[in-house]
Amino acid sequence: MCQLMGMSANVPTDARFSFTGLVERAGRTDIHKDGWGLLFYIGKGVQEFRDLKAGSECDVANFLKQQCIKSNIVVSHIRQANVGALTLENTHPFRRELWGQNWGFAHNGQLEGIHDKLPLGRYLPVGTTDSEHIFCWLLDQIHQAFPHPPSDPQTLYAFIYEKRQYLHDFGVCNFLLSDGDVLIAHCSNKLQWVTRRAPFGPALLKDLDFSVDFSAETTPNDVVTVLATEPLTTNEIWTKMTPGDMLVFKAGEIIGEFVSR
Amino acid sequence: MCQLMGMSANVPTDARFSFTGLVERAGRTDIHKDGWGLLFYIGKGVQEFRDLKAGSECDVANFLKQQCIKSNIVVSHIRQANVGALTLENTHPFRRELWGQNWGFAHNGQLEGIHDKLPLGRYLPVGTTDSEHIFCWLLDQIHQAFPHPPSDPQTLYAFIYEKRQYLHDFGVCNFLLSDGDVLIAHCSNKLQWVTRRAPFGPALLKDLDFSVDFSAETTPNDVVTVLATEPLTTNEIWTKMTPGDMLVFKAGEIIGEFVSR
Repeated sequence: MCQLMGMSANVPTDARFSFTGLVERAGRTDIHKDGWGLLFYIGKGVQEFRDLKAGSECDVANFLKQQCIKSNIVVSHIRQANVGALTLENTHPFRRELWGQNWGFAHNGQLEGIHDKLPLGRYLPVGTTDSEHIFCWLLDQIHQAFPHPPSDPQTLYAFIYEKRQYLHDFGVCNFLLSDGDVLIAHCSNKLQWVTRRAPFGPALLKDLDFSVDFSAETTPNDVVTVLATEPLTTNEIWTKMTPGDMLVFKAGEIIGEFVSR
Repeated sequence: MCQLMGMSANVPTDARFSFTGLVERAGRTDIHKDGWGLLFYIGKGVQEFRDLKAGSECDVANFLKQQCIKSNIVVSHIRQANVGALTLENTHPFRRELWGQNWGFAHNGQLEGIHDKLPLGRYLPVGTTDSEHIFCWLLDQIHQAFPHPPSDPQTLYAFIYEKRQYLHDFGVCNFLLSDGDVLIAHCSNKLQWVTRRAPFGPALLKDLDFSVDFSAETTPNDVVTVLATEPLTTNEIWTKMTPGDMLVFKAGEIIGEFVSR
């Protein structure tokens, strides 16, 4: 299995604190040491970092912990390999262009029998993970249904929710998906989130004796949502997503809520 | 204008020396300070680094100068913006997936009137550069002609050469293109290369008082070709490509030579 971390914010925000907690789980406090990756969405562009080394012992990850890179959306992943060899092309997040947008995808879970049932089209996997396969399949499905971006984005989110129900039948499929505008989070069995807004206070990492006082780092209008497979902090209240639900975050706020009940 | 740097080697090779020389030109010895990028091809995967800051003063670039990341193919670029704003999505190299392979592209030059004459299809630019436009156009042309990879790759290289002649009519179009297997170099007016092989000796950077003795870093069978807009070293003989020519490098050796004479 793997772990996910995502961020959606209404101002360019430094995600080091969350990333620092996450990569502790990549070999130190947990076993997700088979590579990691992180996408910072900045404007329409993406600044991407990934490495095959365990995140907790990796020079690139250590460097990122020191770098103040501010972005509105982050998608990150630490891997514990099950399907697919320990290679760079099998590290998440995966990335493809659709409609001239950078789409990024990271997955936690395992899916059975997808290769026959989910035929590929426009997008082909570079690596051998089930995760990249479903990402390619999903983007192709989107492109078939919407050769151009729909005028009402909610139509798109509803379509993705319908498709994810189909994916859900093949196994565990927690994912983070972004087009650079919104961050879409689907919970198959495990995904949680917390929104930070004024009044900001201190936050304490769960995996490391490290805290940040966000009141010193933010302005009163900032809204920052962080998502993770398991809570990254001990002194905040994280909301557990209900299995089967999908949330769409934009600028830190929920703008789409798709529930299975 | 911009500057290009590429590497093709028969063993995973550390490209720090060349990168160190290149990024000096990104604000210190030359004016290419509008962002930079570098793709390391490792297996089928790509480790990508890019930043909008001037390469000579950028933390990410400085970090890379200290990191021994070994790969068989490198595509790198330092930008001096002309067409397209100073944004992350306009930094080269650009990357798209074709046939389940990571294709990377970096361009030096400027093309006029391409938007009408080079219609896009399967791939759309994320940014606003002429460079990303021609990359998207070229990949779409390849995909139209070869829905699947041709059994004889020389057919593909000949096709790319034919298309680049068409591009050449729109202006200056020096480029590096890779599918992770080969490195394709096209010279419109300025591109040079040097191949290092046994007996290896010292090399001295042109832009910085820095040398490496490659005999201490290599084995007798290593073959490493470095390409650059302008020679990166002062004590080696660089071969100037003839305008209109295209070379295909694999494992450091030329495996395809397309000439306009």
